[in-house]
Amino acid sequence: MAVTRDKRFNELWLTENSSDNLRLSLKVNEVLHSEQTKYQDILIVNTPEYGRTLMLDGAFQLTERDEFCYSEMMAHVPLCAALNQPENVLIIGGGDGAILKQVLKHDIKKCVLIDIDERVIANSQKFLSSICEDAFKDNRAEIKCMDALKYIKDIKLNNNLKFDVVIVDSTDPVDFAAGLFMADFYNDLKQIMSDNGILTELTESPFTDTDLMRQAIGQMRQVFNNVKLYWGAVPTYPSGMWTYGIACNNLNINLAEPVRNVNNTRYYTNEIHRASFVLPPFLSELIK
Amino acid sequence: MAVTRDKRFNELWLTENSSDNLRLSLKVNEVLHSEQTKYQDILIVNTPEYGRTLMLDGAFQLTERDEFCYSEMMAHVPLCAALNQPENVLIIGGGDGAILKQVLKHDIKKCVLIDIDERVIANSQKFLSSICEDAFKDNRAEIKCMDALKYIKDIKLNNNLKFDVVIVDSTDPVDFAAGLFMADFYNDLKQIMSDNGILTELTESPFTDTDLMRQAIGQMRQVFNNVKLYWGAVPTYPSGMWTYGIACNNLNINLAEPVRNVNNTRYYTNEIHRASFVLPPFLSELIK
Repeated sequence: MAVTRDKRFNELWLTENSSDNLRLSLKVNEVLHSEQTKYQDILIVNTPEYGRTLMLDGAFQLTERDEFCYSEMMAHVPLCAALNQPENVLIIGGGDGAILKQVLKHDIKKCVLIDIDERVIANSQKFLSSICEDAFKDNRAEIKCMDALKYIKDIKLNNNLKFDVVIVDSTDPVDFAAGLFMADFYNDLKQIMSDNGILTELTESPFTDTDLMRQAIGQMRQVFNNVKLYWGAVPTYPSGMWTYGIACNNLNINLAEPVRNVNNTRYYTNEIHRASFVLPPFLSELIK
Repeated sequence: MAVTRDKRFNELWLTENSSDNLRLSLKVNEVLHSEQTKYQDILIVNTPEYGRTLMLDGAFQLTERDEFCYSEMMAHVPLCAALNQPENVLIIGGGDGAILKQVLKHDIKKCVLIDIDERVIANSQKFLSSICEDAFKDNRAEIKCMDALKYIKDIKLNNNLKFDVVIVDSTDPVDFAAGLFMADFYNDLKQIMSDNGILTELTESPFTDTDLMRQAIGQMRQVFNNVKLYWGAVPTYPSGMWTYGIACNNLNINLAEPVRNVNNTRYYTNEIHRASFVLPPFLSELIK
């Protein structure tokens, strides 16, 4: 999806086809970067409504103005629900560094970030530094540009590293990212997670991606004993109502109940954590 | 805003300019009705994404698929928080009947609905009957097509009627609706409310209408002792994150704590009621 010119007003607009029947468009002040990588199309623009905006393969990934809604809920919910203080965290995807920045607010030892596309990382550091700030330079961060499946295999074979929290910040489940929402993948992850390890993954919108959300939760349930859904607002994601799947094996962990807090947040609080697990009946019905 | 043809695919699309810099577009299967009334432009279309959709003056008002998110939160939060079982309810605007339908789920005596534009009511009954169903025929419903300000004046002069719940379901605060977000109007309303009466009004999006939201809450605080903000998801409203102002004079009423329940809902529950008053820090900061 390219930036198009609205000839009536001589304006540039960037449009996401959220579905075949729904579009979200942002006016564009300036195109900062455009690149076709080995994996995807990267587009970074500046918009008056949401600030700098990263689009991958035609889908809005994050904007300066609303990324905290998503990044904080992806990072702090599992990190605050974990039984013991998490030490090792794995982020799969997330090459923009937004979730990494949130994870590093916690007293962890190490956060490994695996993104398949080094160009996302490089361009985010260059054009979205207001979002990722110094996260990539933190000495607890270990950045790897490779296929997550290969990394998991390597860890299983050669390493005793176990992760206390795994955050899957994938693009939409098509092409190379499709496997990241399947039971086989969750099974692989389970083997590199600690006994009380927690997995979190975006599960899309109950309005625009109903089937996908249900399937992802269903696949998680095949692998983990304790699976829940939580939700929040993310204005630039389809429908603005966004869901997250969270899973662990220990049934005694109440994922909806935080056992620690985190400072310096704009969306997440312990109260928001609890509230985000309260589902409207239409939503709990969908994942019955 | 008219329906436009996307020539690349020979498709009809309907676009809302949520702001000067943000647009939401729905593909259109069929234009059901288009009319310029004395007050506004009415457009009713059928869309594959959200079903039948009502647009007034270029702004999406409701769709078959997501109206329950808004209507239930507008109706059930004040009705379930009211100290004593509400008897008399006033809806200002809401000519589509969606909120009226929700109000009538409660054991009330009378619900007066005042919409300035009789054509909204007539067209909703004709084209959006799946939403308003039999609400307009309920013998507890009293429908009036007139200016709300005149109605309030009449009630004050000639009547002892006091309302236990007032719901202001206005269009966006421009033109004839602008006054419906001001202290003068709230003062008028206060005089026709019972001592423990509760007022609820949409207060727009914290992302796309930040100033408006703050102003509306500020104006409410000038008139009522007990003012709170709650929020929820409404996919077809700007940014999808929607806020509601709620106000009463009795400081002993905990507006966030429901004292009764309602059956047959898809978004509202007593738990959602409580959760919707939990604000992300960025939002509570805005209305400090």
